[in-house]
Amino acid sequence: RINQERLWASLMEMAKIGATKNGGCNRLAGTDLDKQARDLFVSWCKEAGCDVYIDKIGNIFARRSGKDNRAPAVATGSHLDTQPTGGKFDGVFGVLAGVEVLRTLHENNIQTPTAMEFSVWTNEEGSRFQPAMQGSGVYAGRFDLATELNKTDENGVQLGDELKRIGYLGKEEIGSRHIGAFFEAHIEQGPILEDENKAIGVVRLGQGIRWYNVEVNGRESHSGTTPMHLRKDAMVPASLIIAELEQIALRHENGLGTTGFMQVYPNSRNTIPGKVTFSAELRNPSSDTLLTMHQELISFCENVSRDRDIGIKVDPFWYFAPVEFSASDDVKAATELLGYSHMDIYSGAGHDACYMADLVPTGMIFIPCKNGISHNEIEYSSPEQCAVGANVLLHSMLQASER
Amino acid sequence: RINQERLWASLMEMAKIGATKNGGCNRLAGTDLDKQARDLFVSWCKEAGCDVYIDKIGNIFARRSGKDNRAPAVATGSHLDTQPTGGKFDGVFGVLAGVEVLRTLHENNIQTPTAMEFSVWTNEEGSRFQPAMQGSGVYAGRFDLATELNKTDENGVQLGDELKRIGYLGKEEIGSRHIGAFFEAHIEQGPILEDENKAIGVVRLGQGIRWYNVEVNGRESHSGTTPMHLRKDAMVPASLIIAELEQIALRHENGLGTTGFMQVYPNSRNTIPGKVTFSAELRNPSSDTLLTMHQELISFCENVSRDRDIGIKVDPFWYFAPVEFSASDDVKAATELLGYSHMDIYSGAGHDACYMADLVPTGMIFIPCKNGISHNEIEYSSPEQCAVGANVLLHSMLQASER
Ligand SMILES: NC(=O)NCCC(=O)O
Ligand SMILES: NC(=O)NCCC(=O)O
Repeated sequence: RINQERLWASLMEMAKIGATKNGGCNRLAGTDLDKQARDLFVSWCKEAGCDVYIDKIGNIFARRSGKDNRAPAVATGSHLDTQPTGGKFDGVFGVLAGVEVLRTLHENNIQTPTAMEFSVWTNEEGSRFQPAMQGSGVYAGRFDLATELNKTDENGVQLGDELKRIGYLGKEEIGSRHIGAFFEAHIEQGPILEDENKAIGVVRLGQGIRWYNVEVNGRESHSGTTPMHLRKDAMVPASLIIAELEQIALRHENGLGTTGFMQVYPNSRNTIPGKVTFSAELRNPSSDTLLTMHQELISFCENVSRDRDIGIKVDPFWYFAPVEFSASDDVKAATELLGYSHMDIYSGAGHDACYMADLVPTGMIFIPCKNGISHNEIEYSSPEQCAVGANVLLHSMLQASER
Repeated sequence: RINQERLWASLMEMAKIGATKNGGCNRLAGTDLDKQARDLFVSWCKEAGCDVYIDKIGNIFARRSGKDNRAPAVATGSHLDTQPTGGKFDGVFGVLAGVEVLRTLHENNIQTPTAMEFSVWTNEEGSRFQPAMQGSGVYAGRFDLATELNKTDENGVQLGDELKRIGYLGKEEIGSRHIGAFFEAHIEQGPILEDENKAIGVVRLGQGIRWYNVEVNGRESHSGTTPMHLRKDAMVPASLIIAELEQIALRHENGLGTTGFMQVYPNSRNTIPGKVTFSAELRNPSSDTLLTMHQELISFCENVSRDRDIGIKVDPFWYFAPVEFSASDDVKAATELLGYSHMDIYSGAGHDACYMADLVPTGMIFIPCKNGISHNEIEYSSPEQCAVGANVLLHSMLQASER
């Protein structure tokens, strides 16, 4: 069994890095705060006897030797970056559950049959740089390394430059870790486990995600002198599309549709906006339904563009297909061995495990979080809930190593 | 007659200050660039024999003595601040038409019956600080001096501090200029004079304006895990209100409705926005119609708030009632004396003259601008069109001085 107090203390120590005044964290990928969080993780892993490797997209791998070091290692990992107004648990819980597994093995001098690896993936959140799960996506070969390193944030700063600046642009080749299974523990980020009063969610599926950049190109002019029929207002079409995203979601079972990001040019109240850019997101556990939703969005944008004679560019730059987790039965078995209540569940969020599932048998372990709230500074899971998840992670990894 | 080449050269010289790469100007109120523009105006007025006074809200008054310096002066003025992607003429034309009137009197050694004053009003645009026509509004007693000096921009910087920093927080008491009439020359900023092929618009009315800050308060949560029915998304209500502003405008003759400014928190694509703030603007030449539009907006916001159980604050922080210009017959007489074509027109935009009309007989002179485009870097009026406007300004002022 892992040590609940130690796990909690580590979570609280990590949460100091980028702590916000409302009790959350703001630790965007590639920032100085991301560096501090990574440094702390590396120091903890080294103290527990690991060797540490950094790859060319900044993913960190801490390796603990086993009995047979030629056999593929059993790995776990998650992320340390957060949303701008994120919580203390999203991602961090998975990383520190891994550290707690490592410390438990280390202090008990347990020699596992295979090596074990503990990883931190670069920019999982997709907030500062897009898409999300960027480090694991590059690792799994879904994204091109050079393209991703060149991606820029809102201010034109490149990810590659930031990784270099903070000392995490490593030398390890992409995809070169020798691993045989991957597990990720994570808070559910939704309300179901709490509602159903279950300790563990055995994640069967990660739902599909489509991300878009939408750009409406109008013409700037004076809001007080330009008659309605002569306007090329970029703001109103953007509003219609945002409202329609909600309608698309409501028309389809389990559909989700969101705009979280918007920029208005020149953003002056008496100038009709000449350009509005914003994000659109659609999610569904069924790829067929998600495709229908996608088609509805595209044709809606085309209609608005035609009816209003205004330029609308829709760039569907990221499609993440629903993924099944083939090692979920290992998670279930470990949960049952430990006697915790559980249920099957699907993940609404994308996770690094979703890309690792391309490469090796992968399983995900969800724990409840308060009121299902995540991507919010008040995000919370209790010390007990965290300990249960870390124990399931420990035994899932041990079982896989023994096989 | 004024000197067309000299007027044009001054316009082009002023346009260098804050010049944008697309041929416009970005010279927000209270910035270093605003200071440079003010300094240039002051130096030109001093060269032409004026004394210069700065008041406590940063308005500049350059005074040229007349025969009877106890009689109230005849004044003109406009503004040198611009939109973030503004043009070379909006405001600047009126100021430099004044400078050209001054130079014409100066080089011909004309002693006018009364003194003449040439002014620059602080923050007419209302882009960086709200409301618009802030300097003239304070001067006319519509706004409280201390309140306005404490107003902050998006980054929390105070207008008073900026004026002090750039050396334009003066000592003259508010409202203390001894003037008897005010004229402002301005580009039309709309398409009517061009369409009707008239050289001069005799402005009879400034239409009514209502400005609002709208704040939608939702709850941040994860866009991938929060079911639609559990969301408190601040973005969708904002979109519905923006789309409705257009509908309100279309339902009423001469109605205008616009959102030009928006900020989204935390502005991350996979976090449901917890807060969205945006501007709403309604305009109409009829105060009754504008009131109806206002009521429609308020009740729409209340309905959205109730139906979605989400907090929506609507702050109607500025109402500018339609204003009639009592000195427009002087403008018309000067135009006819000079033999230029003209028509009566109303102003869609607010102008400093609208507040000066509270205090003294006031007239406005519009010249055409290309395709009616303003608040855009491509804004354009020709050297000939500018010269016509400055000549009408000269003779309107001379007539008023002689009376
Ligand atoms: N776990 C998590 O919040 N991932 C971010 C990627 C997503 O938007 O689903
Ligand atoms: N002339 C001008 O653009 N004024 C700004 C105030 C307004 O929005 O009408």
